[in-house]
Amino acid sequence: MNHFETPNPHFELIVRDSFARQSLMSTIGAELTRVAPGEVIIELPFRDGLAQQNGFLHAGVIAAIADSACGYAAQTLMPADKDVLTVEFKLNLLAPAAGDRFIAVATVLRAGRTLTVVRADVHAVGKHLATMLGTMIAR
Amino acid sequence: MNHFETPNPHFELIVRDSFARQSLMSTIGAELTRVAPGEVIIELPFRDGLAQQNGFLHAGVIAAIADSACGYAAQTLMPADKDVLTVEFKLNLLAPAAGDRFIAVATVLRAGRTLTVVRADVHAVGKHLATMLGTMIAR
Amino acid sequence: MNHFETPNPHFELIVRDSFARQSLMSTIGAELTRVAPGEVIIELPFRDGLAQQNGFLHAGVIAAIADSACGYAAQTLMPADKDVLTVEFKLNLLAPAAGDRFIAVATVLRAGRTLTVVRADVHAVGKHLATMLGTMIAR
Amino acid sequence: MNHFETPNPHFELIVRDSFARQSLMSTIGAELTRVAPGEVIIELPFRDGLAQQNGFLHAGVIAAIADSACGYAAQTLMPADKDVLTVEFKLNLLAPAAGDRFIAVATVLRAGRTLTVVRADVHAVGKHLATMLGTMIAR
Repeated sequence: MNHFETPNPHFELIVRDSFARQSLMSTIGAELTRVAPGEVIIELPFRDGLAQQNGFLHAGVIAAIADSACGYAAQTLMPADKDVLTVEFKLNLLAPAAGDRFIAVATVLRAGRTLTVVRADVHAVGKHLATMLGTMIAR
Repeated sequence: MNHFETPNPHFELIVRDSFARQSLMSTIGAELTRVAPGEVIIELPFRDGLAQQNGFLHAGVIAAIADSACGYAAQTLMPADKDVLTVEFKLNLLAPAAGDRFIAVATVLRAGRTLTVVRADVHAVGKHLATMLGTMIAR
Repeated sequence: MNHFETPNPHFELIVRDSFARQSLMSTIGAELTRVAPGEVIIELPFRDGLAQQNGFLHAGVIAAIADSACGYAAQTLMPADKDVLTVEFKLNLLAPAAGDRFIAVATVLRAGRTLTVVRADVHAVGKHLATMLGTMIAR
Repeated sequence: MNHFETPNPHFELIVRDSFARQSLMSTIGAELTRVAPGEVIIELPFRDGLAQQNGFLHAGVIAAIADSACGYAAQTLMPADKDVLTVEFKLNLLAPAAGDRFIAVATVLRAGRTLTVVRADVHAVGKHLATMLGTMIAR
C-alpha cells in the first residue's frame, strides 16, 4: 500500500537515532515499532502518571505520540541532512482514551521539498481514539 | 479585561481539584497559577525528560499544558455538575520551545451551553512559542 | 466499504433538500453527486469568478465544497428532525487547485449523538488537492 | 499596537493588485478596506447567493474572506518579489453568521522567512462570528 520513494537509504537509522534523543518518549514509555517510507508507528503501553482527570490518557500524550509519529513519517522521505520540525497540527479526539496500549499510525499525505502533510490515527484495541492532521517542515 | 460571568461560584475549587487529579500534570511538573472566569494559566519549569530531539520542549508537552489550560478556562464558566472534555484543538508552533519556564495562558473566546471555544498562547520569557485554538465540551 | 447505519430512512431526501437551499452552492455551480450513509460527494466544474490571484480555485471555494460535503455526510447519520451546523474545520492545501473539475469526498470518522467528526478530500483529475478534518453538530 | 516592520515599501500596492486579481472576491462582493504592515481587513456586505441552508453566510464564504485577509496580512511583511500561498487554516464558527455586513480582521502572529502564522477574526455588527488560525508560505 505504500508508494513512497525516499531519497535517503538510511532513513530508518536517522529516525531511530532521533527518536532515541526525544527524552519525552522515554519518559512516557513510547516505543518506535515501525519505520517505513512515509509511514511510522509509535506504541505506548498505558502507565500511571499520564492521565487526565478521569484516568484516561491525557490529550497531550496522545498529541505527543501522534506528533512524533507524524514528524518521523515526514522525515523518512527527506534527504539525510534534514531535520524535521512541526509547523502545526490539529487533533480530534473521537472517544475517551481508555486502554492498555495505544498505537499511533502516521502516514504521509503529501511530501514536498519544504513542507510535508501527515495524518495520524491513534487506536486502542479495536477503538479509534483520535486523528491528527499536521504539517511538518524540513530544516 | 475579563467580562465573563460564571454560573458556578465554586469554579476555582472544582478546577483545582480536577487539575490535581490529572496525573500527567504532576509527572511533567506543571503548576496551575491562575483560575479566573474564562481564563486559566498553567506554568511549567523546564526539566529533563520533556524534550524533543534537539532538547527543546516537545510539542506534546506544549499541547498538554495548553490543552489543560483551555479545558479549565472553559470549565470555569460551566455549571458545577459539568465535567469538561476536549473535542479538538489545533496548535501552531511559532518558535523553538527553548526556555527555563513556560507559561500557557488560555482565554475563552465563546462560551456556549454545550461547546466552548478557547484560545491559548504559550510563552517563554519574552517569546511567543505557540498558539492553540480549541473546542471543549461540557459533559 | 461503508459500515454506517442511519436512523433516518429519508436521509437522502433531507440532504438534497438542504443542499438545494444553500444558495452558495448554486452560485458556484456545485453539484451533489452522491449521498450515502456517512459519505457525501460534491463536484464543482471550474468556472470564472472562483479564483485566487493566480487563477487557481480559491481556498474559500475548496473549503465551501468540502465543508458542505462534511456537513451532509454527518447529517446522513442523524435523526430526521436534526439540522447540521459546522463547529470547526481545518483545511490543508496540498497542491495548487488547477483543474476543470473538482470533487470533494467526505467520509464520517466518528458519529456521536451530538458531534460528528468528518474527513473530506478534494481532488482534481488524478491529483489530491486538499484535505479537511472537521467537527459537525446536530441541532 | 502594530509593531511590524516590512521590507517592502510597496506592500499596499502589491496586496491591492493581487486582491483585484482574486476573481472570487469580486464574485462575492468583498472589499479590501485596510492594508497595514501585518494587518489586513476585508469587508463583505451580505448579498443573495452566499448562504447556507438557513440563510446564514456559508462557512466557505467566511473562510474565503478570512483566508484572503490572512494571506495578505502575511504578504505585507514579505519581500516584493514573493507571492503568498495558504498552507492550511483552521476555522472555528462561534455563532450563526447573520448580518448585513461582515468584517474579517487578520493579524500576523509570527512572520518568518518562509512561513507566517496569522489569526483572523470575523465579526458582524457587535458579534464575534468566527476565528481563523492559519499558516501562509512565501513563494
